[in-house]
Amino acid sequence: MSQSINIAVIGATSNVGEALVELLEEREFPVKDLHLLASSESAGQSLSFRGRQVRVRSLDAFDFTQVQLAFFAAGSEVTRAHHERVVAAGCSVIDLSAALPLEQAPCVLPELGAEGLPALTTPWRVSAPTPSAVACALVLATLSPVLRPEQLQVTAMLSISTLGRSGVQELARQTAELLNGRPLEPKTVDRQIAFNLLAQVGEVDDQGHAQLEKRLAAEIQQLLSLPELPVAATCALVPVFFGDSLALGVYADSAIDISAVQQLLEVAQGIELVEAGDYPTAVGDAVGQDQVYVGRVRRGVSDPRQLNLWIASDNVRKGAALNAVQIAELLIKHYL
Amino acid sequence: MSQSINIAVIGATSNVGEALVELLEEREFPVKDLHLLASSESAGQSLSFRGRQVRVRSLDAFDFTQVQLAFFAAGSEVTRAHHERVVAAGCSVIDLSAALPLEQAPCVLPELGAEGLPALTTPWRVSAPTPSAVACALVLATLSPVLRPEQLQVTAMLSISTLGRSGVQELARQTAELLNGRPLEPKTVDRQIAFNLLAQVGEVDDQGHAQLEKRLAAEIQQLLSLPELPVAATCALVPVFFGDSLALGVYADSAIDISAVQQLLEVAQGIELVEAGDYPTAVGDAVGQDQVYVGRVRRGVSDPRQLNLWIASDNVRKGAALNAVQIAELLIKHYL
Repeated sequence: MSQSINIAVIGATSNVGEALVELLEEREFPVKDLHLLASSESAGQSLSFRGRQVRVRSLDAFDFTQVQLAFFAAGSEVTRAHHERVVAAGCSVIDLSAALPLEQAPCVLPELGAEGLPALTTPWRVSAPTPSAVACALVLATLSPVLRPEQLQVTAMLSISTLGRSGVQELARQTAELLNGRPLEPKTVDRQIAFNLLAQVGEVDDQGHAQLEKRLAAEIQQLLSLPELPVAATCALVPVFFGDSLALGVYADSAIDISAVQQLLEVAQGIELVEAGDYPTAVGDAVGQDQVYVGRVRRGVSDPRQLNLWIASDNVRKGAALNAVQIAELLIKHYL
Repeated sequence: MSQSINIAVIGATSNVGEALVELLEEREFPVKDLHLLASSESAGQSLSFRGRQVRVRSLDAFDFTQVQLAFFAAGSEVTRAHHERVVAAGCSVIDLSAALPLEQAPCVLPELGAEGLPALTTPWRVSAPTPSAVACALVLATLSPVLRPEQLQVTAMLSISTLGRSGVQELARQTAELLNGRPLEPKTVDRQIAFNLLAQVGEVDDQGHAQLEKRLAAEIQQLLSLPELPVAATCALVPVFFGDSLALGVYADSAIDISAVQQLLEVAQGIELVEAGDYPTAVGDAVGQDQVYVGRVRRGVSDPRQLNLWIASDNVRKGAALNAVQIAELLIKHYL
C-alpha cells in the first residue's frame, strides 16, 4: 500500500463518521495524521484512534492544505458548503453525503477493482454510493456474467439510522412512549414511525420522485455502466434501528439461469448468500458485518426472465463507512 | 336486499372473526340467526351482536343444515378439514383463509360488482382474496380503462397481525423485552421481529416461492381476468401491529398518462388518493378505515411505461373482514 497520508473526517461525530474512524484503525489504513472535524457545536468531543483520544475540531477554521484526503460524512449541506474550499487546498474528497452531482464526483464500487475506476486527476472528488446502491450494484455486478438487466425495481426498506443519530433516538423514544401508553408527539420525523412505515424519505419533486430515489437510480446506472437502465426505486423508512432491507426485482434480457446466479453469489467477494428456505435479516445477519447478505433468490413464478431477491445490509458499516474506506484503499494505490 | 339468512362465522374469536361480527352488525347485513363457531378451546367465549351476547360454540358438533352462509375466518387447516361437510349440508362458503384452490373457490372483488362475479351454483364456495390481493386488484381494476399491465412487481410489507392475535402479542412482547434490555427468545416467529424485517412468510417451495406469494399472484391474475400476467411478489413481515403497506410497480403496454391515472384513483369507490408530497401510512391513515389508501403515484424516472405507487390498507378490516362482508352482500342478491 502507498505511503501514509493525512486524513480528515468531516462529520466525525455522526454514526457514519464514528464508524469511519473505527474502520480506518481496524483495517490499518495508512493514516499519518487524523483530523476529526465537525460543526462548532460538536467540536470539543473526542474519539479514540490507535489508542489515543483525538479531539474533534471545528470544520470552519480548518486548513485543508495539510491533508491529502477528506471524507465528508456530515449532512449534504455541509459538503455543498465546504467541498470547493477543500479541493482548492489540494485535498481529494470522498463524499458520503450524496451532495455532489455524479458528473462532478463519480461513484465507485470498490469490489469492481481498478477497472471500475473513473479517470481522475488529483485532487479528485468521488462519491461513495448510497447504501442501497452499494448493495444493489454489488449484486448486479456479480451477476453481470450471466444476467443483463433490462429493468430494475427496488423497494428499499431503510432503517431509521438513515436519518442519523436523531432518527435512532426518535424511534426509541416513540416506541417507549407508545408502550407506556403516553400520547405520541413526533419530533425528528413528521409522524409516527414506531410500529409504522413511512413511504417517503425527504421531499419529492414535481414528478413525485424523492431525491434519494433518483440518486439511487443514477448511482446504480453509473456503477453498472448502464446509463439507460430503467430503475424504479421506492425508498421507505421502517421501524428498524440499523440495517437496510431491499427487495430487488430484475427483469433480464433472456431467461435466467438460476443455478448460475446462485453459484456466482456463492463465491462473490463481499456477498454472503443465504440458502433457500432460510433468509437473511438486517438485525440477525447484516448489522455489524462487512458483507451484504442475499437470500430469497428466485425466478418469477410465470416469467423466466424475472429474478427476485432480498438483500440485508448494514447501512452504516458496509453501506457507508466500510465502503468509503474500501474506496480510499483502492484510490490511494492509483491516485494519491 | 334479500330476505334474512342464517349465518355462521367460523373462527369467531380471531381478529378477523371479531371484525366480521362487528361489520355484519354495522352494515345491517340481513342476518336472521348468527352462529359463532370456533375450536373447542375457544368455545364458551361470547361476542356482542345487536346488543346481546352470542356464545361461541364448538365447530365440530355444529349442524350446518340450519345456515345458508358460512364465513371461514380460522386457519387454513380448519377450512380444509370442514368445508366439504359444510357444503354437503347445503351451506355456501366464503373462505377468508386462502385454503381452497381458486378453481374450486374463485375469488371475488366486490368493487367489480355483479359483472365481476363468477358463475356459481348454490351452495357455492368463494374465496375472499388475501388482503394484499384486494388492495392491488382494486387499484389495477380502477386503472384498467387507461392502463393495461404487462408485469407487476409487488413488495408486500405485511403487519404482524397477518399471523393473527399471537403475532400481535409476540411483537409487543419482543419489543418490551428489548426496550427493557432483557434477552430475546422468539416464540411465535422463529427470530427477532421487533425492530427487524422478516423476508419470508411461511415455508417456501423448491423454487423459493412462499405459498402466500403464489396465492397473491394467482388471485390478482384471476381478479383482473389476466391469467398470463407475470406477477412477482415478495411478502415480508414488518414490525407493525396492524395495516399492510405495499409498494406496487406496474409495467404497462404503453406510456402511462399519469393525470388520467390520478383522476381515476381520485373518484374510485373504495380508494382514498393521497396527493403528491404527502403519503399514506398504515397506522396514520388506513387502520380502521374502509378505504384502501393510495399515494406516491408516479411514473418511472426514465421509463414512461412504468408506474409506481404505495398502498396502505387495513389488513384485518378492508383487507379481510369488510371485503368478505361486501362479497356476501353482493352474492346474496344473486345466489342465495
